[in-house]
Amino acid sequence: MAMLLEGKKVTANLKERLTADVEALKARGIVPTLAIVRVGEKEDAIAYERGATKRCESVGVEVRSVLLSEEATHDEMMATVESLNKDKNVHGVLILRPLPKHMDEAKIVAALAPEKDIDGITDISMVGTYANKITGFDPCTPEACMEILEFFGIETTGKNAVVVGRSLVVGKPAAMMLLKRNATVTVCHTKTQNLPEICKRADILVVCAGKAKAVGADCVSPGQTVIDVGINVDDEGKLCGDVDFEAVEPIVGAITPVPGGVGTVTTSVLVKHVVEAAKRQNP
Amino acid sequence: MAMLLEGKKVTANLKERLTADVEALKARGIVPTLAIVRVGEKEDAIAYERGATKRCESVGVEVRSVLLSEEATHDEMMATVESLNKDKNVHGVLILRPLPKHMDEAKIVAALAPEKDIDGITDISMVGTYANKITGFDPCTPEACMEILEFFGIETTGKNAVVVGRSLVVGKPAAMMLLKRNATVTVCHTKTQNLPEICKRADILVVCAGKAKAVGADCVSPGQTVIDVGINVDDEGKLCGDVDFEAVEPIVGAITPVPGGVGTVTTSVLVKHVVEAAKRQNP
Repeated sequence: MAMLLEGKKVTANLKERLTADVEALKARGIVPTLAIVRVGEKEDAIAYERGATKRCESVGVEVRSVLLSEEATHDEMMATVESLNKDKNVHGVLILRPLPKHMDEAKIVAALAPEKDIDGITDISMVGTYANKITGFDPCTPEACMEILEFFGIETTGKNAVVVGRSLVVGKPAAMMLLKRNATVTVCHTKTQNLPEICKRADILVVCAGKAKAVGADCVSPGQTVIDVGINVDDEGKLCGDVDFEAVEPIVGAITPVPGGVGTVTTSVLVKHVVEAAKRQNP
Repeated sequence: MAMLLEGKKVTANLKERLTADVEALKARGIVPTLAIVRVGEKEDAIAYERGATKRCESVGVEVRSVLLSEEATHDEMMATVESLNKDKNVHGVLILRPLPKHMDEAKIVAALAPEKDIDGITDISMVGTYANKITGFDPCTPEACMEILEFFGIETTGKNAVVVGRSLVVGKPAAMMLLKRNATVTVCHTKTQNLPEICKRADILVVCAGKAKAVGADCVSPGQTVIDVGINVDDEGKLCGDVDFEAVEPIVGAITPVPGGVGTVTTSVLVKHVVEAAKRQNP
């Protein structure tokens, strides 16, 4: 039986810290505020917005919902971002993506002020993650992985960490964040030839392959910590991760469930960034 | 006996390609030009400038030497960089560092136009290396390692590459460039606990530890390709790498000498970037 690395425990701890931070900011007259920019009425965007709003409000962070119709032009979207950049009462901006095809998403992302880029999507945020300096914000999902490791007291220094996946949203930043925490880091991907052998040697295994059951019993060994970043829907319509939980859990030392693991913490990290942004903008 | 990965062979090949590219540019009235900015008369800066100038001239790239006295102010340096940014006849700018302490080096680097950043030192260049897109230029030293692998036909896809060192100048970009080339990449550093074991498993071993003899016979195995980025001076005053060449060479499959390996190619990569910059600025 592996230790279950439940996201809700990490989230509860973060909530406590953030509530205190928000109170301290409010005592100084600052109300940490997140603007969520949504174009159109796509169901998953609405669901994500609802979740983020609820989590923000639970610690006292205000949310301003900015809605554009599906027919809004690229220029209207740009004007919206630029106006939020200038608005001193907005500390963080979350742009729900993908944007409609008639908008140049890259240009809109580039227009976002890095100090309000609480989702870590701008080039300036990315270089901070890569170069280990504070420019914008780290992407929320890999940071959620680090919050989980920290909360459960899992040592990283000198440990072998294996990241399965090399995306810019999770794999690469997770590798950088583990390097910063003094782990020896290996990045695997679809061209890796001996995945089970490499994964088995890991002390910490972060799986962000984007594919259900990418990591099974053949890839793990006793004592390992497994962080499953995947969110997939299985044949029976049930949510599952990139790790074959049923097969892996009896072998390893600790593992995150899906749902209830990394995804749960990711939203809290987003809120943490809004609070951090409000602090940085009001030193 | 390992195959000797001699830099001069790579350089000769690059020289041929670059000479042809420069001729094509000149036929269009464009003279690829590098500005080298040097502050003061430090010996190693002068030596580096001399080497780069010679290599540029050997393929027809012009060099403009921009000298500031050791007493030049931060503002004078900024004005110099800004004027070179605007100068349409200058395609690349090399700022010899470290700058004197009374200048804010970070600010000066940030002022450099990314399209002229042929040394890959700006944040915008760095994010290109990290995110695998063209923004500025990759740093010259890790790119020299890739040129060596390519020239000697060493396969990277699906191979295990181990990078010893996690600096922003060599280790991290080398890891990113190997990932781009589909290698499975492990980054080791001073906190790595089982270095010999990890290094032995590599197909390609890139050593940029910044320490003489950081990698010895205990870290290598038959058939490996070893790229030694180090430049140190040993007890007898002789140049040596980060790899114990005498001990390692008889075991591995291929190895770069020091001197005559990566360092030789690095200067040619700098020249390649100037030519590439001239092309990009004149599409």
